Amino acid sequence: MCTAAVYKTKDFYFGRTLDYDFSYGEEVVITPRSYAFHFRNAEVMERHYAVIGMAHVEGDYPLYYDAVNERGLGMAGLNFVGNAQYRKAVQGKDNVATFEFIPWILVQCATVREARERLARLNLTEDSFNRDLPVAQLHWIIADREETIVIEAVKEGMKIYDNPVGVLTNNPPFGQQLFQLNNYMQLSPKEPRNHFSEKLSLRSYSRGMGALGLPGDLSSPSRFVRAVFTKMNSVSGNSEAESVSQFFHILGSVEQQRGCCEVGDGKYEITVYTSCCNADKGIYYYTTYENRQITAIDMQKEDLEGNQLIKFPLVQGEQIKMQN
Amino acid sequence: MCTAAVYKTKDFYFGRTLDYDFSYGEEVVITPRSYAFHFRNAEVMERHYAVIGMAHVEGDYPLYYDAVNERGLGMAGLNFVGNAQYRKAVQGKDNVATFEFIPWILVQCATVREARERLARLNLTEDSFNRDLPVAQLHWIIADREETIVIEAVKEGMKIYDNPVGVLTNNPPFGQQLFQLNNYMQLSPKEPRNHFSEKLSLRSYSRGMGALGLPGDLSSPSRFVRAVFTKMNSVSGNSEAESVSQFFHILGSVEQQRGCCEVGDGKYEITVYTSCCNADKGIYYYTTYENRQITAIDMQKEDLEGNQLIKFPLVQGEQIKMQN
Amino acid sequence: MCTAAVYKTKDFYFGRTLDYDFSYGEEVVITPRSYAFHFRNAEVMERHYAVIGMAHVEGDYPLYYDAVNERGLGMAGLNFVGNAQYRKAVQGKDNVATFEFIPWILVQCATVREARERLARLNLTEDSFNRDLPVAQLHWIIADREETIVIEAVKEGMKIYDNPVGVLTNNPPFGQQLFQLNNYMQLSPKEPRNHFSEKLSLRSYSRGMGALGLPGDLSSPSRFVRAVFTKMNSVSGNSEAESVSQFFHILGSVEQQRGCCEVGDGKYEITVYTSCCNADKGIYYYTTYENRQITAIDMQKEDLEGNQLIKFPLVQGEQIKMQN
Amino acid sequence: MCTAAVYKTKDFYFGRTLDYDFSYGEEVVITPRSYAFHFRNAEVMERHYAVIGMAHVEGDYPLYYDAVNERGLGMAGLNFVGNAQYRKAVQGKDNVATFEFIPWILVQCATVREARERLARLNLTEDSFNRDLPVAQLHWIIADREETIVIEAVKEGMKIYDNPVGVLTNNPPFGQQLFQLNNYMQLSPKEPRNHFSEKLSLRSYSRGMGALGLPGDLSSPSRFVRAVFTKMNSVSGNSEAESVSQFFHILGSVEQQRGCCEVGDGKYEITVYTSCCNADKGIYYYTTYENRQITAIDMQKEDLEGNQLIKFPLVQGEQIKMQN
Repeated sequence: MCTAAVYKTKDFYFGRTLDYDFSYGEEVVITPRSYAFHFRNAEVMERHYAVIGMAHVEGDYPLYYDAVNERGLGMAGLNFVGNAQYRKAVQGKDNVATFEFIPWILVQCATVREARERLARLNLTEDSFNRDLPVAQLHWIIADREETIVIEAVKEGMKIYDNPVGVLTNNPPFGQQLFQLNNYMQLSPKEPRNHFSEKLSLRSYSRGMGALGLPGDLSSPSRFVRAVFTKMNSVSGNSEAESVSQFFHILGSVEQQRGCCEVGDGKYEITVYTSCCNADKGIYYYTTYENRQITAIDMQKEDLEGNQLIKFPLVQGEQIKMQN
Repeated sequence: MCTAAVYKTKDFYFGRTLDYDFSYGEEVVITPRSYAFHFRNAEVMERHYAVIGMAHVEGDYPLYYDAVNERGLGMAGLNFVGNAQYRKAVQGKDNVATFEFIPWILVQCATVREARERLARLNLTEDSFNRDLPVAQLHWIIADREETIVIEAVKEGMKIYDNPVGVLTNNPPFGQQLFQLNNYMQLSPKEPRNHFSEKLSLRSYSRGMGALGLPGDLSSPSRFVRAVFTKMNSVSGNSEAESVSQFFHILGSVEQQRGCCEVGDGKYEITVYTSCCNADKGIYYYTTYENRQITAIDMQKEDLEGNQLIKFPLVQGEQIKMQN
Repeated sequence: MCTAAVYKTKDFYFGRTLDYDFSYGEEVVITPRSYAFHFRNAEVMERHYAVIGMAHVEGDYPLYYDAVNERGLGMAGLNFVGNAQYRKAVQGKDNVATFEFIPWILVQCATVREARERLARLNLTEDSFNRDLPVAQLHWIIADREETIVIEAVKEGMKIYDNPVGVLTNNPPFGQQLFQLNNYMQLSPKEPRNHFSEKLSLRSYSRGMGALGLPGDLSSPSRFVRAVFTKMNSVSGNSEAESVSQFFHILGSVEQQRGCCEVGDGKYEITVYTSCCNADKGIYYYTTYENRQITAIDMQKEDLEGNQLIKFPLVQGEQIKMQN
Repeated sequence: MCTAAVYKTKDFYFGRTLDYDFSYGEEVVITPRSYAFHFRNAEVMERHYAVIGMAHVEGDYPLYYDAVNERGLGMAGLNFVGNAQYRKAVQGKDNVATFEFIPWILVQCATVREARERLARLNLTEDSFNRDLPVAQLHWIIADREETIVIEAVKEGMKIYDNPVGVLTNNPPFGQQLFQLNNYMQLSPKEPRNHFSEKLSLRSYSRGMGALGLPGDLSSPSRFVRAVFTKMNSVSGNSEAESVSQFFHILGSVEQQRGCCEVGDGKYEITVYTSCCNADKGIYYYTTYENRQITAIDMQKEDLEGNQLIKFPLVQGEQIKMQN
């Protein structure tokens, strides 16, 4: 499915993997400040924050999967199948379709704090973008350099969780994901100590044994634990190259290799793309399953005052550098 | 520590990760056919197969970590600390120092079958290269497109294992590594079935749950199971780009992220480099921890008749492609 | 902590372990039909169903841990520390203190269906029995031969869960316990099959490997999974002796051995007692940590019309039968 | 299959479970000092140590499963299917059939030290007792209050292991069993500490979480780890009753419940019997699957000078004590 993570060194980084068995045709899309956003249940928004992120553009509308705005707020939607539940539009609420949710937050809010205010009035509606694009069952992560939250619209209503780990995957609901971390509290990046029995001379016969018990499969709860362990113990330099490099290593710990997750009929879920956005600078980095090299788009190099989407098709195919 | 793997599509691929907390300064080194190999306990070998691989060159001598020869035979040495045991030189045996072992096999043998014949007369000696480079405790994987073997010199003598999985990590001895796979036989890339109780309606709530139980830590036995699972279930196209891409994904499943394996004093083991050699074509691909882009050196573009080592310093630093 | 289970052969059985580091001094107590029950927030109940179970009697009041009434309804309270939350008495509700809850249900209800009706009007209050006995944080299992439910009073209010597995342990809340069973759906009492890779000849080298992955520690979620697996796959004859024997084997799978669960200061949690009540016949069987032999008390042998508690101190000490 | 264990308080205790899907009809058998032992490849032994243990008696010959002699030496044979390998009788060795092995050691040796001397000259032969009783594939545990050893006759020859844990189960070979304990060194009977990340406030939400990761299934390696954990951390009083009680609790941790280990055709492996012998006093205690009460036979109450086997059929059926 997918994994999202945040990371902070000198700058603040926000990114995710998109794991799926096919691609809708996504590209990096910059929405400049004067692109007219037509929300279903609100007036046209003519002027707003600029946004950069990965989107499938349908009829000149950016269906963002993950994005960051020029103020450093990031947001991503991840599969939440079987748990997500949306409602009909209601009076007195801000009625927002799920496909509008990411831009609706990012074009208006500079911080998580501001997003929280919007969320207090929010009703996520069951409107689909069009007939061919059914409503995706999602939950969302919103983060700035100070805090991270998770939004889940479930049967009981809308839930907003503080996210102290800065990671989101898929099912089960976030509260349960967070809770299960308690089961792994003894795991450590350090060499294990013998607590089994003082009378036995047990020993570490390999480096890395302190984390024995960390799950290695590709299911959503296992990816959650592994990504949190990797992220919370991550060590890197502060420079842009070192930070971005480490970010891709963190998400690399939950990458889905083709063949390891069969979804039927000889189809396999893979990590279609991995993104890492420097939320402070507006630089969007990505890799794809078939192109390990990091490619980047710098929002600030474009005219952010425009009214037309600026689109960058993904660089496809392994970019191998021949050294001789 | 390290993980080695083989992979076969149209061509045969051989590679490894080198996981360590520092680097001795390795580079890609081609040993051409007329480089005079001075073995400690044998005559100078003036003429032999050409070899390409990763090596630390000390005093014009290529201390190979992993390499492939022009006939498609690959070999790599991986840490085997606490179990490796070498002997003094003995009459009537081919006495070979461990640092000579990789070139000694690769310059003379075209296949694993030929290597087996050499191994029958082999005595691995405890000679060190020089005072400053103590003898490394290693075991080795040797592979061609037909078969893979593992060589371990232990207290009981030298053991040669058939390796049906084409993966090697570190401790414990290979026989035990292979045996423990039985414990994971129920794991699958497919969706799990309910065998717990027919009376309960258990369900898969996330893709990937068929492999729940796969270990996710960085210890040697856990990396072994994970790499084997990933490799045996791997699905990819046959082209060079697709094969190489998939190979790096396979080894990516056991990559060591900085921070997750502390070895004391704020030092961390990381995947210093990952290699993938097309053994049929003699093209050596590599990535480093700080450079995700694949860099390649094609042996066939060099003069393989020479007598001087041809060295390629590793391209360091993240090679980010700016798209705007 | 504790584990409760139900089991059905020809008759219906209900029982539990009580795991703790000390005992309050419990005994088997029969409350006959005319014992006057003084509930805090209700009128005296002069006439009601007779009840048999394990209780600590304080001031002639039976503080039941688990009990069954003469109609075949069973109920037990198990620790639920950190999650249980009770309220002040409120108008318009049946206000029942937690220490009254078991008798309040069992003296009035013949079935779970009837208990559900009572529960609809219930408010569990934070009243303590007296100063020396603080309010225990508990959740409850109620069962008859048709159905089993779990009652949890938590921050969000009172929750009533259908319990399809007939097992209850402690934290986390029951919904989460039930959900985590999905993670174990591949486990089986049968021999495992190789789904890891068709290309490898993996094999079962020991009986019982189909359930590899079943947790073996004494924590509450692990006991839950293990008890459910054992109970759902349990096979036994229908006779009273065979049924009771098998019931003790089921709870034996989660027994706490002295030394395996240290709770500080050289104190250890052990399975103080294990009970199994034939709910149809009103026979209460028990064993204690130091007395493996099953001891039984048959409710029907007593005068159930009385107004005084009938108490049976537990038979203590290993009852070893010398055969010569 | 089976689990054997030793335990020392004031006295020394030796016992085992026998796990199987049927019973050959075993009973407690005392071999007195003048019973004439006819060994296949040795002279008749007219006079020897007396022995008590569980045996199937066939043609007046005690086929011991486990036994203890009057000097306090205990020995048991456990299944070792697929690994055991016996040989033809050879000149210059003490040739002993596997069914003779337990009495051969116990009637002659007072200590493990003496047993080691015998073992140095031993050749375990492939002779069967008779046509109807094929040679069982076994390995053995021998123990006195000072030390415990394991004997395995495998392809490479006979191996004698020191056994620092005092536990034996079945496959794989003992060296591997012992080695795998290193994988569990972080497990503890104490409350776990948070080593996952200092930045997270993880917590123990249930007692017993320090041993999360302990395997709970009935396979041989899992029973080994669980029995060792339970035994090494066991806490009990020194009295006979407390010691014996605790011993049965230790082996209770690996008991096999009917239904949890299907061996085909609706047959299930169960713990047929559990034994515990006070090796110092010669008192043999046992329970059976259908009789939880401990039954005991005291060797010293019999005439140990006799020449006829003294047999005690097992007390079968649940011995329930009615308290009213």
